[in-house]
Amino acid sequence: MRWLTKITNNFSAEKREFSKKLKYLLGYEAVNLEIYEQALLHSSKSVEITQNNERLEFLGDAILDAVIGAHLFRIYPKREEGFLTELRSKIVSRKKLGELGKAIKLDNYINYDEKKVVLSNRMLGNALEAVVGAVYLDAGYAQSEKFILDKLLKPHINLDTIFQTEVNYKSILLEWAQKRGKSVSFEMANTEYDQVEERLFVMEARLNGSVVSTGKARSKKVAGKEAARKAIRKLGIVVEKA
Amino acid sequence: MRWLTKITNNFSAEKREFSKKLKYLLGYEAVNLEIYEQALLHSSKSVEITQNNERLEFLGDAILDAVIGAHLFRIYPKREEGFLTELRSKIVSRKKLGELGKAIKLDNYINYDEKKVVLSNRMLGNALEAVVGAVYLDAGYAQSEKFILDKLLKPHINLDTIFQTEVNYKSILLEWAQKRGKSVSFEMANTEYDQVEERLFVMEARLNGSVVSTGKARSKKVAGKEAARKAIRKLGIVVEKA
Repeated sequence: MRWLTKITNNFSAEKREFSKKLKYLLGYEAVNLEIYEQALLHSSKSVEITQNNERLEFLGDAILDAVIGAHLFRIYPKREEGFLTELRSKIVSRKKLGELGKAIKLDNYINYDEKKVVLSNRMLGNALEAVVGAVYLDAGYAQSEKFILDKLLKPHINLDTIFQTEVNYKSILLEWAQKRGKSVSFEMANTEYDQVEERLFVMEARLNGSVVSTGKARSKKVAGKEAARKAIRKLGIVVEKA
Repeated sequence: MRWLTKITNNFSAEKREFSKKLKYLLGYEAVNLEIYEQALLHSSKSVEITQNNERLEFLGDAILDAVIGAHLFRIYPKREEGFLTELRSKIVSRKKLGELGKAIKLDNYINYDEKKVVLSNRMLGNALEAVVGAVYLDAGYAQSEKFILDKLLKPHINLDTIFQTEVNYKSILLEWAQKRGKSVSFEMANTEYDQVEERLFVMEARLNGSVVSTGKARSKKVAGKEAARKAIRKLGIVVEKA
């Protein structure tokens, strides 16, 4: 039986090592190690849906949105929906998630095939989402909230800075259209059915005269900006700075 | 002091009545009644951000995505990210949320100005999102999960039916292009960096020869469909059935 004991010991040692590394990453003792292994397994190592981290990305993405959304809701009690949506979308942007993954040293954890792929910012962000999904499955919503706020948001995201680097949606849209010989205009729309007082403005973003999107806000300026932001999303324009 | 007692009694009676109605709606005893009052207050009655239900909509939307995402993740253990995303987007579509609001009789709860607006499917869906946000704030994530699954999803959504009424993205895209005198084609793309075995296909949707989007899947058919779905979103094409 000596060989079996040896195998078991080696196996346990490896598990113990991984468990210790995870504790450092997560700030708590993981129970189901396999789920974290999956979260860190890039598709270059396994294309099997049930083994690699792509499904967990889907889950983690939703948990990140909920936790960060609820957090912003609480810390900005007087800001409107559009503001909260915009601020959150900056925090969970591809670029920012990759930076967060790097900040918590996920590059030391991801299991990928170095012969096939180069570790990218995008892979780091995806793995981070998957890890959040694993935290949710292994330890529940409250723990994933704690992980996201205490390990990611509070130490690595400066909300004031993010706020200042606000994207100028209108100029991005105008520039995009100009390059393609199209015209952009912003126009006041008619009053909408669920809009009741004069200080609510609905602005339309128009491309060659056709409405692409509308934005609603308490000032024309903000409504126009909101319309531009939506138009950019609808038209699939890539916003580099976000 | 008799008048004071009378006022207090009337006030309490009203609160008690609302609390009883809420219990019927939610399936549990609400603690912070004010937050539900706000969730049910349409902007036609108050344009104040801190009073009407628009901020709570933002919160509820995120909680719905997380809870339904996690639920689908669990009940479809072998389905890929794209499938889960698509199925969820159908469940939380404007139309479906309005129907769910109607199904749980939210029309009896919404506080709106009948002289200014007509109660719409959209208002019902928005109020439903706001109620979910209120449940989360008042009773926590676990209770909002219970509410969403037991009161909304399980009794009122037939996942098989939703699945069957699958949108034919390719034909929608083709029709849209045809009307505009543009050509659409689907072509196999080169292998991508994170794709390692031959049974993963990457298909491109092209408009007048230019790539609009790509789809990745284990069959060419599904990859093409996925590419079409993304192209529709990018081009801002409105899908009526969704």
